[in-house]
Formats: sequence, C-alpha cells, structure tokens
Amino acid sequence: MTTHKIAVMPGDGIGTEVVPEGLKVLNRAIEAAGEPVTLDTTTFEASARRWHETGETLTDDELSQLRDYDAIYFGACGDPSVPSGVLERGIILKMRFGLEHAVNLRPSKFYAGARSPLAEPGDIDFLVVREGTEGSYTGQGGNLRQDTVHEVATEVSVNTWYGVERTVRFAFAKARARNKKLTYVHKHNVMVHAGHLWRRVVEHVAADYPEVTVNYEHTDACTIYMVTDPGRYDVIVTDNLFGDILTDLAAAVTGGIGLAASGNLNVEGTAPSLFEPIHGSAPDIAGQGIADPTAAILSAALMAETLGMEVVAKSIQTAVEADLAERGEAKRTTAEVGDAIAARIGG
Amino acid sequence: MTTHKIAVMPGDGIGTEVVPEGLKVLNRAIEAAGEPVTLDTTTFEASARRWHETGETLTDDELSQLRDYDAIYFGACGDPSVPSGVLERGIILKMRFGLEHAVNLRPSKFYAGARSPLAEPGDIDFLVVREGTEGSYTGQGGNLRQDTVHEVATEVSVNTWYGVERTVRFAFAKARARNKKLTYVHKHNVMVHAGHLWRRVVEHVAADYPEVTVNYEHTDACTIYMVTDPGRYDVIVTDNLFGDILTDLAAAVTGGIGLAASGNLNVEGTAPSLFEPIHGSAPDIAGQGIADPTAAILSAALMAETLGMEVVAKSIQTAVEADLAERGEAKRTTAEVGDAIAARIGG
Ligand SMILES: CC(C)[C@H](C(=O)O)[C@@H](O)C(=O)O
Ligand SMILES: CC(C)[C@H](C(=O)O)[C@@H](O)C(=O)O
Repeated sequence: MTTHKIAVMPGDGIGTEVVPEGLKVLNRAIEAAGEPVTLDTTTFEASARRWHETGETLTDDELSQLRDYDAIYFGACGDPSVPSGVLERGIILKMRFGLEHAVNLRPSKFYAGARSPLAEPGDIDFLVVREGTEGSYTGQGGNLRQDTVHEVATEVSVNTWYGVERTVRFAFAKARARNKKLTYVHKHNVMVHAGHLWRRVVEHVAADYPEVTVNYEHTDACTIYMVTDPGRYDVIVTDNLFGDILTDLAAAVTGGIGLAASGNLNVEGTAPSLFEPIHGSAPDIAGQGIADPTAAILSAALMAETLGMEVVAKSIQTAVEADLAERGEAKRTTAEVGDAIAARIGG
Repeated sequence: MTTHKIAVMPGDGIGTEVVPEGLKVLNRAIEAAGEPVTLDTTTFEASARRWHETGETLTDDELSQLRDYDAIYFGACGDPSVPSGVLERGIILKMRFGLEHAVNLRPSKFYAGARSPLAEPGDIDFLVVREGTEGSYTGQGGNLRQDTVHEVATEVSVNTWYGVERTVRFAFAKARARNKKLTYVHKHNVMVHAGHLWRRVVEHVAADYPEVTVNYEHTDACTIYMVTDPGRYDVIVTDNLFGDILTDLAAAVTGGIGLAASGNLNVEGTAPSLFEPIHGSAPDIAGQGIADPTAAILSAALMAETLGMEVVAKSIQTAVEADLAERGEAKRTTAEVGDAIAARIGG
C-alpha cells in the first residue's frame, strides 16, 4: 500500500465548495481502479477569512511544512474585502515561487457537450505550458515619488536562461508525446531583451527534438487565432504573463473556466506540485452550492497522473467527458455534479 | 481654403496597397462635402526595402521633419527578412515615443454584414484607449551574460503618473461623450506597483467625471468577456501591452483586423498624430492586390475627424457601413473595395 500525502487548501468562496467534490471523485476512482493507494490528506487554511482574523496569509513555517507532502490540492483564494495583491502574493505566488513551480500546465480541450462562444469551435485540444516563476510575476520594481504627479512605477520582468529552458524542455517533451507541434508565443518584436532570450532558448532546445515542428506567434496574433482557428495548436509554450492571459481566453473558448484545470509543476522533483482549477473564488456565486466542480475534478485527475496513477486519471477524465456529453441545460448543484461524475466511475 | 499637410508612409507589403485607397476615399469625401480643404501629401519611405538598401529605418532628421505635418497616414511596415524588432523600434515605436503619441485609440464596432467568429456577437461598439508611450514598450532592460546558461534578460515596464493621467483623462472624456461607462483593465493583483498607480490615477480623475461609471477588470478576465459578452463595454482604458493584446482580440471578434482602424494621438497638440490600420504588412498576401483596405479607409476617417472634418469622417464611416452590409462573399480586389466605398460617398 502506498500512501500519498496530500495538502488540501480549499481557500475561499467556491474553492471550499469544489475541493470536496474533487477529492470525492478522486477517492472513488482510486477505489474503482483497485490501486493500492491511500490518500492521507491534511487541510491547510489559507484564505481571506484567516487574513482578516490573524493578518496571516501562508506563513514561512507552513510553506516549509508543505515540502513534506506529495502534492498540494488547491481550491481558490481571494475576496473583494482584501486589498488586491495581498492573497495573490501571500499565498498563490508564494507557493509558485517558493516551491519552484516552473511549469504551469493548462490543458485546453473542447469536450463534446461543452458550450463554446465560437460559432465553429471545431476540434480543439491543446496544452499551454506557461512559465510559472519568472517574467512580470517576480514583484520586482517599485514606486518612486508615490502619490505625487511625479510618480514613477516600474515592474521588472525577469527572465533567466535556466528558468526558460526548464519550461521549454518540458514543452518540447509534451509536444513529442503528442502531435509534435510546438508554438512559442511572445512579443519579441517589442520586448526584445526577454523575447530574444526565449527565441534563443527555443532554438537551442529544438536541436534535441528534431521531430517537433516549431513555430512562433506574437501574443496579440495568438489571441486572434484563439478565436478564429484554435484547432491549429498542439502545445503552446509562453511566459508567465502571456500564459495567464492566453489560458483564460482558451478556457473561455473551450466552454468556460468552470472546466479548466491546471497543474503548477515542480519539474525537478525538489518540492510538491500543486493542482488547482483556473477559476477564482467567485464571490458572486459563493455559498450557494451552485459552482461547477468540473475544473477542480479535472485538476484532481492531473494530480493523479503526476503521482503516477495514470489509470485513475484516465477514468476521471472519461467520467467527466461522459457527464459533459449528457449535461444539457439542467441546473445541478455542485455536489450533484460531483456525485454524477463519481457514479460514472468503474460503474 | 485650408491646406492640411499629410505625411504619407505606405511602408511595406499590403501597407503600400491599402494607403492609396484610403487617400482616394478621403479625397472623394472632402470633395463631396464641399469642405474648403486641400490635402498636401508628402510620401516618406520607411520600410524593410529601405533598410535592406541603406541600413536606415526612420532617421532623426525625418522624425523632426514629420513635426511640420498636420497628420501622418501610415500603412504598415515589417518583413520576415528583417530581424524582429528593427523596424518596430526604428520606425513605429520611434514615432510613438518621439511624437508623444500618448493615446492609441482603437474603436471596435461590429458592423452589419461583418463576420464574427462568435456565435452570438450581439451589439458590439466600444473604444479601447490604449496608453502609447510607456509600460513594457520603453525598451528599458537588457541581457546579462548573454548566450550563457547564466543569462538574465529583463524588461522594465515604466509607468508615470503624467503618462497614465493624460491617457486616463482622454478615456474619461470619451466615455462622457458616449455611454458613460469606463472599464479600466490591468493586472493589479500581480503587477502591484504599476497596477496601483493606474488605480490611483483612475480614482483621481474619476472625481472630475462623476457621471461616468467606472469598473475594473483583470486583463485575463477581460479576454473572457471579450468572447462571452463584448457588448458590455463602452470605453476601455488600459496600458500599452494589455492594449496591444486586447485590441487584436477585439478586432478578431468584430470581424477581423482587415476592418480595425487606429489613431496614435498626441493629445497635447505638440506634434502630429498618426493614423494606421491595426493590421501589419501581411507578407503572405502582399503584392496580389487582394488586401482589404477597409481598416486603412476607416483610419483615414479617424484622421479626418481629428483634423476637424467631422462631416467628412462621418460620410466615410457611413459609406463603409453600407459597403460592409452588402459585401457578402464576393471576392474583390483592394482597388475595387476602395472604388466601391468612394462611389457611395455623396452619391
Ligand atoms: C490569481 C492570480 C495571481 C493568478 C495569476 O495571475 O497567475 C490567476 O489569474 C491564475 O491564472 O492562476
Ligand atoms: C508592430 C507592433 C510594434 C505593434 C505593437 O505592438 O504596438 C502592433 O502590434 C500594433 O498593435 O500596432
């Protein structure tokens, strides 16, 4: 019997509603697959609620405790009552940076039964490999002469060969295992310093993957293709900020962020990876039990895959696809969706 | 009789094909309106062709000559044979920065007869006011230990109260003249230094426009609404990089970049403004006379409006709308589209 230690962080709002459904489905899938695996879960509280009560986000001590886990399963955090940036920097980005989540993996698939805003979505199935620890997310920069008409605010995007290469290598490996097409996206006609570093790293790594076809798109052009021809993509690799924007757009195009899963991966095995739905805490619908748990459930499948449970992951994905295909217009509660997906597993 | 001195810069590729159509329609509209105006045009060559021949982009001397004109009418520049960034920094951005084009104004309207990739585009009619002289476009930053595994590349986004305020004021004024809704878009939960400067400037200027309703969206969320509910927007104000991305997406959603016009405006009257289609030189279709000149023609209308010729501008827009409504599937040459639109004016 293997025990996987999972740190569970439901967070705020609908995060606390969808996480139990993900765990329910995951446990059911492990049982049905007859995997000799137990999940040993510990809940960590990192939320707006806690911040209001104690002024704490995620402490350094908790960050180092998290290192003892095999994976982190995260819901969402954030609330309008907390100043913008406090929870993002104090919880989400603290883990991405502290645990070296080099790759933010975001699959985009248009499932039968899902509803796209596009008239002709076609066959959409690609992966975005977003760099997770650099770029405009480092927090470097500051404000000079704040609150005067002479104020200057800077944000420094920091990009390293090391950080870009590990992300790009991961993307090439994924492309080789899929349809062998890699699109790297940047804005190297304007952001020449970082853009040319990315270009040189891509060219360097490409030499090790002769079977993968590589092409380049500017970020602005990529948003156009995302709505006119999303079927063109197999694997996209891009920087932290562009990846943030493109994956929300990709989620919208394939049926909404209620379906979009993600994994923040430590690709060097030095700390646990984290799995979370792309959506946020959605304070507008929180507390009503109506949030769609599908993204959280698919994130649990990504977690299972990363923990080596391919059969479990596949069975969850298959159950989700079947549920989506028959979903129709019916309104179901969060728990009903979780139950329905769980019931399709190993049935 | 007033003479408007116009610097005409066709550039490369389809830029050289669409610019004559824009001038044709503009001259026709001036004539039809009986405006006591002559256009005195001078052509400036700034292109890949010239760079290959002479190594020059746009010289400092030419930049200062441009100051004597009332407006600049630009096609597009760029060619894959020129290293990325050379023409962008040497021509396009050199003018935006050198001539203080604080506002990059990009209207997005879904015209009857245009074809959107969205299943239900609805009624789309908004303006994006993009900051044009700051942010990630300044070129600040560099490469340390280039071409080694220890390389670090930085891009510094520079934002000033002065630069943000003049753009935000322009946006509020536009919103007041339209439907009184302003959405400002940033990513202030991550880019806290610049994001909070933007927020404070918006709040400061909002005090002067009590009749305008202001709301905020993260850039990633904005791309979702752009495909699920673009009708929500009236005026969007945002930074240089986010504006670049959002306006290409907006153009795609409203029928393609073949229709999207823009003006790079010097809002202080210290140098001429520049008008250009959003699309680039499109080397793949250049030389065939099949490029759609509509975006260039609508850019000429924006130029007319800025030069105080409202009637001329309106007549061009009306002619374009009529042409689009009856366009259908027919393939026409660039000149045929220009002729058809010109023929509808003052007819
Ligand atoms: C909440 C925020 C910090 C985060 C990001 O910008 O990365 C979110 O948008 C995401 O994509 O996971
Ligand atoms: C060509 C390029 C420098 C430019 C930009 O990034 O601003 C273009 O994409 C645009 O939007 O006008």
